[in-house]
Amino acid sequence: MTDIITSSDAAAKLIDGKAAAAAVDAAAADGARQIEAALGRPPCLAVVLVGDDPASQVYVRNKGRRTEAAGMRSVEHRLPADVSQADVVALVQALNADDGVDGILVQLPLPAGLDETEVVQTIRPDKDVDGLTAQSAGALVLGAPGMRPCTPSGSVFLAKQALGDLTGKSVVVIGRSILVGKPAALLFLAENCTVTLAHSRTQDLPAVCRQADIVIAAVGRPNLVKGDWIKPGACVIDVGINRVEGEAGKSRLVGDVDFDQAIETAGFITPVPGGVGPMTIAMLLANTVAAAARRAKVSVPDSVKDVLPG
Amino acid sequence: MTDIITSSDAAAKLIDGKAAAAAVDAAAADGARQIEAALGRPPCLAVVLVGDDPASQVYVRNKGRRTEAAGMRSVEHRLPADVSQADVVALVQALNADDGVDGILVQLPLPAGLDETEVVQTIRPDKDVDGLTAQSAGALVLGAPGMRPCTPSGSVFLAKQALGDLTGKSVVVIGRSILVGKPAALLFLAENCTVTLAHSRTQDLPAVCRQADIVIAAVGRPNLVKGDWIKPGACVIDVGINRVEGEAGKSRLVGDVDFDQAIETAGFITPVPGGVGPMTIAMLLANTVAAAARRAKVSVPDSVKDVLPG
Repeated sequence: MTDIITSSDAAAKLIDGKAAAAAVDAAAADGARQIEAALGRPPCLAVVLVGDDPASQVYVRNKGRRTEAAGMRSVEHRLPADVSQADVVALVQALNADDGVDGILVQLPLPAGLDETEVVQTIRPDKDVDGLTAQSAGALVLGAPGMRPCTPSGSVFLAKQALGDLTGKSVVVIGRSILVGKPAALLFLAENCTVTLAHSRTQDLPAVCRQADIVIAAVGRPNLVKGDWIKPGACVIDVGINRVEGEAGKSRLVGDVDFDQAIETAGFITPVPGGVGPMTIAMLLANTVAAAARRAKVSVPDSVKDVLPG
Repeated sequence: MTDIITSSDAAAKLIDGKAAAAAVDAAAADGARQIEAALGRPPCLAVVLVGDDPASQVYVRNKGRRTEAAGMRSVEHRLPADVSQADVVALVQALNADDGVDGILVQLPLPAGLDETEVVQTIRPDKDVDGLTAQSAGALVLGAPGMRPCTPSGSVFLAKQALGDLTGKSVVVIGRSILVGKPAALLFLAENCTVTLAHSRTQDLPAVCRQADIVIAAVGRPNLVKGDWIKPGACVIDVGINRVEGEAGKSRLVGDVDFDQAIETAGFITPVPGGVGPMTIAMLLANTVAAAARRAKVSVPDSVKDVLPG
């Protein structure tokens, strides 16, 4: 693997998360039309934003835009940073009870002083389009129907797009967070992969990583995964989004994988930005359509079923 | 590792599940006394047995005996094999509502025609001492307080007894059932192990297995795991209990591991029977004490906290 990669080789290895997300958005839009035809109203996603964190505001704005672009209804609830815990919980309960709301997303992190766990666990499982409640996590373990977390679902989608059927592939997930690492491991297991969960206490992480057909990097440490950690031809899904100092004092985004090194060895790799990132909202839209269908006891549209993991 | 193992060497390698279970039973008994002192009544476990499967009857009888031997109250509810689904669900609901019942266990499998999933998912999570509800599985993923499944908990206990702190150990779990494989993987992850989940679709299972410091065999295939699958010195926890034809037409119990081969290479190994088997009821008793404490909002007794996994 000492060849210099030409730009066309490199392009062939890149997994285009923007294009994949656009395809999932389109599937969600198709599903939303079917739901609207069946119910007389489109699926509706309610987003709760507490406080004025600039990054959260950008995310929420993007979610709202893409929800509407997919032909769904987007409702935003903004609460001040000094809102009481009881008021946040009460809002979630009101959204639980509102029959016109199919999906509820609480933008995280919440401002300091609020109990994030209690707020999230208040969400009704059938409206938990982020897949973060204990009920959703349990359904994932049991292989029962339920909402799967969006970023792990997007990671599976991209790996399948690169490799096709994943049966028998060995997957190493680096990072064991409840948002990404653990659900990603369970989702790849459901794809019949042999899955290893590695983390900060793992012995000889490079050697563990080198055995993987598919590497999922989800630790939040810039450029942690080096080129020689990657088995030649492996598929690298970089979930990390880290802001680092760039040239001339400007900051830039990098992943958990040293991209310039890894692309020389990998068979497929997601860039940061433009890889897993755009998939998260795409899967949120697909989940919202599925939630609307299940709540109304109509079939989940095939277009949406096809893009969601098992 | 070509030395012939003398009987004393072999004995040193054996993990004595009966002795470990007796220690956990004693811890549960100690905890039960504390609960009785605090609440004026001992913890109570209700067992539901449907039909007349002989093996299930033996299990239920053993559970009842050990529950009472640990100073707890045991209640058995027997229903005929032709009972309706609605009646089984109604019984579980009545036990959910009965404030004198701390733990509910439905003996599985249920007779054909009954919906096992619906029955199990009816159990209140705070009385789910078998750890089988979606809420319990979700709590395990999220690292939240909750009931952990008994056989996986027993496996962790035995591995810790053999090796001490498990941080950084590589664990290979063979089998991905919702009763054992998946929860065992999550429990060993919580012990800071690097965990690989392998199964029937895994490529080159012997090679995967040979990398493990700890092998958990939970597939239900007699003698599947051979001696040369085991890294020298590794700890082997055999969850399988398979009845096979023995000599003179008599049946005998064997595990998923070829014990006679594996003991030559392993550093520690559980026998079948007398290994993981006795631990399952022991952990059930510990869970019942913990359930009684949490329901009454008193501290879980230290003796019980010490034997339960994280």
